[in-house]
Amino acid sequence: MSGSAAGDTKGKVAVLGAGSWGTAFSIVMADAGNDVCIWARRDELAHAIGEGHENADYLPGIELPRTITATTDAEQALAGADVVVLAVPSQSLRDNLPTFLPYVGSDAVFVSLMKGVELGTQKRMSEVIAEVGDVPTDRIAVVSGPNLAREIARREPAASVVACADEAVATTLQQRMHSPAFRPYTSVDVLGCEFGGAYKNVVALCVGMAVGLGFGDNTTASLITRGLAETARLAMRLGANPLTLMGLAGLGDLVATCSSPLSRNRTFGEKLGQGQTVEQIYASTRQVAEGAKSCSSLRALAHEVGVEVPIVDAVDEVVQGRLTTAGLMEAFINRDTKAELS
Amino acid sequence: MSGSAAGDTKGKVAVLGAGSWGTAFSIVMADAGNDVCIWARRDELAHAIGEGHENADYLPGIELPRTITATTDAEQALAGADVVVLAVPSQSLRDNLPTFLPYVGSDAVFVSLMKGVELGTQKRMSEVIAEVGDVPTDRIAVVSGPNLAREIARREPAASVVACADEAVATTLQQRMHSPAFRPYTSVDVLGCEFGGAYKNVVALCVGMAVGLGFGDNTTASLITRGLAETARLAMRLGANPLTLMGLAGLGDLVATCSSPLSRNRTFGEKLGQGQTVEQIYASTRQVAEGAKSCSSLRALAHEVGVEVPIVDAVDEVVQGRLTTAGLMEAFINRDTKAELS
Repeated sequence: MSGSAAGDTKGKVAVLGAGSWGTAFSIVMADAGNDVCIWARRDELAHAIGEGHENADYLPGIELPRTITATTDAEQALAGADVVVLAVPSQSLRDNLPTFLPYVGSDAVFVSLMKGVELGTQKRMSEVIAEVGDVPTDRIAVVSGPNLAREIARREPAASVVACADEAVATTLQQRMHSPAFRPYTSVDVLGCEFGGAYKNVVALCVGMAVGLGFGDNTTASLITRGLAETARLAMRLGANPLTLMGLAGLGDLVATCSSPLSRNRTFGEKLGQGQTVEQIYASTRQVAEGAKSCSSLRALAHEVGVEVPIVDAVDEVVQGRLTTAGLMEAFINRDTKAELS
Repeated sequence: MSGSAAGDTKGKVAVLGAGSWGTAFSIVMADAGNDVCIWARRDELAHAIGEGHENADYLPGIELPRTITATTDAEQALAGADVVVLAVPSQSLRDNLPTFLPYVGSDAVFVSLMKGVELGTQKRMSEVIAEVGDVPTDRIAVVSGPNLAREIARREPAASVVACADEAVATTLQQRMHSPAFRPYTSVDVLGCEFGGAYKNVVALCVGMAVGLGFGDNTTASLITRGLAETARLAMRLGANPLTLMGLAGLGDLVATCSSPLSRNRTFGEKLGQGQTVEQIYASTRQVAEGAKSCSSLRALAHEVGVEVPIVDAVDEVVQGRLTTAGLMEAFINRDTKAELS
């Protein structure tokens, strides 16, 4: 990967996955001066992006820059790319990665946009990349922040965090993705960023449930506060910097996701709060709510290291069909009073 | 002040000030089993509350419990009260307090609901109480949290923090105010709670400006994140516990205030963002936006102790008419990229 001054043509970026965030991030990279090739699973979608300059499935109405091309051919997408952006569904990464790896250059840096924790292994996405691809950590970065895809695609100003164990790599990536509307800050706390991103989906599910049940802003603000405390407690136990969780990839992403009617996870929770079942919601929507998967792996991880995670526990119970959303809220309201920091 | 088990009649509480939060908190205290007497400045309002059981000026449509009475006579309001709740406008406290003090019992505890910092002295409200009333800190508490008055008045579930330097006093107050819908947590960090409460009004003004200018959830979430970091930086420099700022009286109150269309400070900022002047807004609204006052005192305080507070600086410049809201947002977007935690 080579760095260069902002505004220059910066080289080729492969974006693997043509969902809303993969596509919106492609716009960021194109605006920052990179040539972008998106790999899509389906022919129609690749054609619509590459020829029609629109991803009508996930970002309808947004015209894509002409420096974005698209293909279903992994080899073509990856040829010459020194930055490889992974934006596939988290639970499919382990299966997808081997089909990409033969075409990834030996110096290329992986950038994960994925916000999940793998079911069964409880691994973060950067850990799956390292393991499956035998990639050293200085070639794996993550991008996370208050980055609702549709707002990013519209070039509304946003800030984000690009984290890599090797700070120099993070800085080079920062230069590669800095566009007029997208402001990346560097970090070396990959774990903290990934945890913030994964956990916030579960908290947003819980906030959505409260909204669906008719609760107001005091209640949702309390859930966000307790949710961030829970995130920080587990992440710190695993080695994250607590300040990461107070920053854009923690608090920022959490607040954006919980505030926005555009958030899939919040919307999923709202439907649960309104009385739909998980099966009914899956049947009626194309998009995945990562939090409905990650709650289970985060719960298992917390159990392994002995950290209490009442929000994740409760959301998982609801998703498993063992607790109603009303029962969840009741449980939060009726606990004993105590000191806040005990 | 005497503590007793939840549900008992708990004694008399005087609430000085009949605005929306004073009145909503009176409902909490009445629901928790206390006899409440509200002191109002205006006869009509005292009559409407005491006889009509409604505060139509500030909480229209909410029926008040019959255990709430009201008067314009400070002596009558305070007679026999062992808890004295102060809910007058922050900048009027120093002038108002001497008219109340002769009638306050020598063992009574003051509870401040006020969220300002005094102009000129840069003192927090608990400091003004201590100074003007010559009251020891173990008789001064503050209540702060994600507590939008209208939702509290509707008995929507909410959590809050009751802080006093003397933890036993905080615990007794917790028992006095714990109702089915209102869940108080204790704290000994009075300074942190007061700072969270005052600072969040300024951040909400800034978020309102962004909303008024048409920015979306990514931008407001970034402002909330940077705003909390700024709050914590200044409060810690002055001796607050950083965890208080991550809790209900910091993050929680900030998120509730910034999310809600009910928030006066956010609404004030929105109008500024839409192009109204401070004078036009003052002319069109009865309620005070504390943040438009506190930004100046917080700025002076930060300057005294040498802490950088870019959001408070910028909001104060806008309120003073020296910077446009568009100029403020431009300044935030165009700073140099850097490491998040630098």
